[in-house]
Amino acid sequence: MANKPGIPKGTRDFSPCELRKREYIFNTIRSVFQSYGYQQIETPAMENLTTLLGKYGDEGDRLIFRILNSGDFMSALSGEDISTLGSSKLSQKICEKGLRYDLTVPFARYVVQHREELVFPFRRYQIQPVWRADRPQKGRYREFFQCDADVIGSDSLLNEYELIRIINDVFTKLKLSVQIKINNRKVLAGIAEYIGESARITDITVAIDKLEKVGKEAVNDELRAKGVSEKALMKLQPVFGLNGSVSSRLSAMAEMIAGSETGLKGISELQTLFSFTEQGNLSAAVDLDLTLARGLNYYTGAIIEVKAEDVAIGSICGGGRYDDLTGIFGLPGVSGVGISFGADRIYDVMEQLNLFEEVTGSSADVMIVNFGGEELKYALSLAVKLRAKGIKTEMYPDAAKLKKQMSYADSANIPVVIIAGEGEIRAGEVTLKIMSTGEQRKVIPGDITDVLSEIGI
Amino acid sequence: MANKPGIPKGTRDFSPCELRKREYIFNTIRSVFQSYGYQQIETPAMENLTTLLGKYGDEGDRLIFRILNSGDFMSALSGEDISTLGSSKLSQKICEKGLRYDLTVPFARYVVQHREELVFPFRRYQIQPVWRADRPQKGRYREFFQCDADVIGSDSLLNEYELIRIINDVFTKLKLSVQIKINNRKVLAGIAEYIGESARITDITVAIDKLEKVGKEAVNDELRAKGVSEKALMKLQPVFGLNGSVSSRLSAMAEMIAGSETGLKGISELQTLFSFTEQGNLSAAVDLDLTLARGLNYYTGAIIEVKAEDVAIGSICGGGRYDDLTGIFGLPGVSGVGISFGADRIYDVMEQLNLFEEVTGSSADVMIVNFGGEELKYALSLAVKLRAKGIKTEMYPDAAKLKKQMSYADSANIPVVIIAGEGEIRAGEVTLKIMSTGEQRKVIPGDITDVLSEIGI
Repeated sequence: MANKPGIPKGTRDFSPCELRKREYIFNTIRSVFQSYGYQQIETPAMENLTTLLGKYGDEGDRLIFRILNSGDFMSALSGEDISTLGSSKLSQKICEKGLRYDLTVPFARYVVQHREELVFPFRRYQIQPVWRADRPQKGRYREFFQCDADVIGSDSLLNEYELIRIINDVFTKLKLSVQIKINNRKVLAGIAEYIGESARITDITVAIDKLEKVGKEAVNDELRAKGVSEKALMKLQPVFGLNGSVSSRLSAMAEMIAGSETGLKGISELQTLFSFTEQGNLSAAVDLDLTLARGLNYYTGAIIEVKAEDVAIGSICGGGRYDDLTGIFGLPGVSGVGISFGADRIYDVMEQLNLFEEVTGSSADVMIVNFGGEELKYALSLAVKLRAKGIKTEMYPDAAKLKKQMSYADSANIPVVIIAGEGEIRAGEVTLKIMSTGEQRKVIPGDITDVLSEIGI
Repeated sequence: MANKPGIPKGTRDFSPCELRKREYIFNTIRSVFQSYGYQQIETPAMENLTTLLGKYGDEGDRLIFRILNSGDFMSALSGEDISTLGSSKLSQKICEKGLRYDLTVPFARYVVQHREELVFPFRRYQIQPVWRADRPQKGRYREFFQCDADVIGSDSLLNEYELIRIINDVFTKLKLSVQIKINNRKVLAGIAEYIGESARITDITVAIDKLEKVGKEAVNDELRAKGVSEKALMKLQPVFGLNGSVSSRLSAMAEMIAGSETGLKGISELQTLFSFTEQGNLSAAVDLDLTLARGLNYYTGAIIEVKAEDVAIGSICGGGRYDDLTGIFGLPGVSGVGISFGADRIYDVMEQLNLFEEVTGSSADVMIVNFGGEELKYALSLAVKLRAKGIKTEMYPDAAKLKKQMSYADSANIPVVIIAGEGEIRAGEVTLKIMSTGEQRKVIPGDITDVLSEIGI
C-alpha cells in the first residue's frame, strides 16, 4: 500500500475522544463567559495583511501565514521585482491575505468596523483557532485555539476584577488549581523612571519578566548588555527583594517610585483591584508580581497571568488592559481590557493531572441489534422512539452475526445493547444487555428509559 | 478619521445576534447527529496540497486557497522556473499547503491515516468552515461552514435510510419544509448503457442534472453538442417523461434498462431504500428523481439532494454513496455514504421565512446597577449569588448616572435591571425593574430567581 497520507507539521487531527475533552474545556469557558453577560462574535480566518502586519512586531510578521493571491498572481510582478526583491517583500506583492494570528487584533478591527452597531461597554467573547508559522515543538502548535473575553469602552477597574473572577470560575469548574499573578504596566514605567532609564522600558520589562525563570543575576546581565547603567541596576535591586503582604509590597513600591506620577497611578490601580479580589472570596490564589510584564507592548494598565499549580508548563491564561488598541485602526481613545485562555495548554495540563476522569462517553447510549427482516422493522421503529426520548441510539447497519455486532458495541464502548429477536417481539419484551457487567434484563419497551436512567444513562 | 478597516471579499464577521441564530442551526444539526450515534472529529484548516489537488477537478484545484511557504520561499525557485513556469505551476513550488475545500476529502485522508484506531462501521460528523476562492455573490461565500455526517465501512442501505432520517429530523426541528430527492448513480450508468453512450456518462449526467432548471430541449441541445447521437437521444426521451408513483416509475425504468446489470442493481437499491422511507413515517417529502446527478464523480450509489419548499435557493443539503473515496489515499475497498448540510444557505432560507422568531436573546438575564461605594460591595456579592444559580448577570462597570445605566440595559436588550441602593439594602430588599413593561417590584434577594422564572427568564 502507498505511504500513509499526512497533515502539515504542527497541525493536528482530533479524534472523537479528544474532542469530547476539548469540548468540555470550551463549554466550561463559554458558560462562564456567558454567565457574566459576554456575547460571542466570530471573525474570518483570513484577514487582509494590512490589518495584521505591524501589530505583532517583526517576529510576529514573519510568523503570519500568507495566502497566495488567486489566479495569475505573477502578473503583478515585474522582472525587476523578481530579481531585486527578497522573499519577504515579494510575498507582499503576491499575497493580500493572511491567517489570523490572534483574536485581539481582529477584535480591534471588528470594533472599529462595526462601532455604529455596538452598545458600549461591549463585552465580547470569541473562541476560534489561530495560526502561527512557529517552529512546532511539544505544546506548541501551528494551529491552536484561543478563548478570549474582552470589555471595551470602559476604564473601570471593575472590569479587571470581573475578568479575574471569570478566570477563577473557569479553573474552579475545571478543578484545576492555579495562581493568578497581577501587575500593572504603569508600575513598570514608574520603575524605569525611578532608575532613570525610561527610554529602556521595553528592554527592562523584557528582562525582568524572566526573573522567575533565570534568576536575578541573569536578569542583571541582560540589562547590562542592553546598556542599563550600574547605578540604575543598583536602584533596581530592591524591587527584586520585596516581600510581605500585597499591601506592604505595594506601600514599599509606592515609596520607591514616589517621584513617578504614572507609577503611583499604577500602585493606586493595583490597590483598588486587590481590594476587590481580597473581598471576592475567590478559590484561586491571586498574588501581586511586580516583575510580571508579558512582553506585549500594547498593555497600558493591568497585566494578568495564570499558571497551573503542580505542573511546569508556563502560562495557561493571560491578559491585560490596553488603552489604545483600536487607535491603530483609526478609532483612538477606546480603552479595553481582556484575557485569553490557551485551550491547548489547559488540555495538556488536565491530561497530565488526570482531570478528564468525568469526561467519558461513547458514540451512543444504546445499540439495537440488527436481525434483518421483520425484526429489523421492529428495531427501526424502536430506534425512532428512543431517540425521541433523548436516548442516543445506534442501529447496527448489517444483519451480521450476533457475535460480530456485540463485538462492535464492545469496541465502541456502547454501554447497553438491545436485543429484540423474534421471541422477544412475540412476548412483547426486549432484552437489555448491560455491557460492563454482562447482565441481561427482559423489559417491556415502555420501560427501557427507566431502566437506562436507573443504571445512570 | 482614517478609512474604516475591512475584511477580505467573500468573508464575514458574525455579530452576537447572527451567531445566536447560527448556533441554533449548528446545535440542532449536532444534536440530531449525536442522537444517531455519530461522533465528532476535527481536521486542520490546512492540508498538504498533495492531499487536496486532483480531487475536485481542474476548476476545484483553481479554487483552493494556497498558503505561501514560510521563510525564504524564493530560494526553491531557479531563474528558469520564474521565466518559464506560469502562476499555476509556480504556485506548486512556493506553496505546500492549502486551505480545506470541503470536509469529505480531509475525512477520507483521516480514515486512511487513523484506520488502526477506528472501529468500523465508523459514523462521524464534522462541523467546520471550508474555503473556496470562488467569485463571491449573493449566498456564495469564500469562507462557509459545512456540517457533514458520514458512515464508512458498511455498504448496508440502512445507512442511506439513516441519513435520510437525519435530514428529516434536522429540518423538522428547524421547522423548515423540505423535499428530499433521491437517485442512484448506477441507474444513471444503466441509462447511459441503454442508450449506447456509456463512455459519455459524465456528459450525460451533467446535462440531465439541469433538466429541472433549463428544460428538456436545452438538455437535448447540450447532449447533441457533446456528440451524443440522435438515436441515443431518442432512446433517452422516455426517461424525461416518467411519471406516477415511485414504484411504478422504478418498474418502468427497470424495463427500459433491463439489459444493464449495473442499472438493475441501482433500481433494486432504490426499491429497498424507498421501502424503508415509505414505512418510516417521515415528515419531509421524499421523492425519486431519476435525473438527479449532483455532478460529483465519486458517487457510486445513492444520490441525495434536499431543497427548501417555498424558497428558490438551490440545494441546502446533499450527499451520496462513494465506494472508493479512501482508495485515492491508498486504502481501497472501503464503502462510505454521507451527507452535508450547507449551514449558510439554511441560515439564509430561515431568515427569508422568518423562522428565527424563537431565537432571541440578550447578553444577560439581568443587569445590576452600580452605585459605587458600599452598595457596590453588596451588588458584587449579589452578582456572585445570581450567577451561581444560573442567572446570566452583568454588573454595570462604572458608577455612572442611573439614567445612563438604564439606557445601556435598554440598548443591550437586558430584560431585567436590579436596583439595590442604600434604602433597599437597609430594608433587606432589591427593586426589580422589568424593562419591557417598566413595572418595578420590591423583592427580597432570596426570591429573585423565583420572580425571574415567573416572568419567563
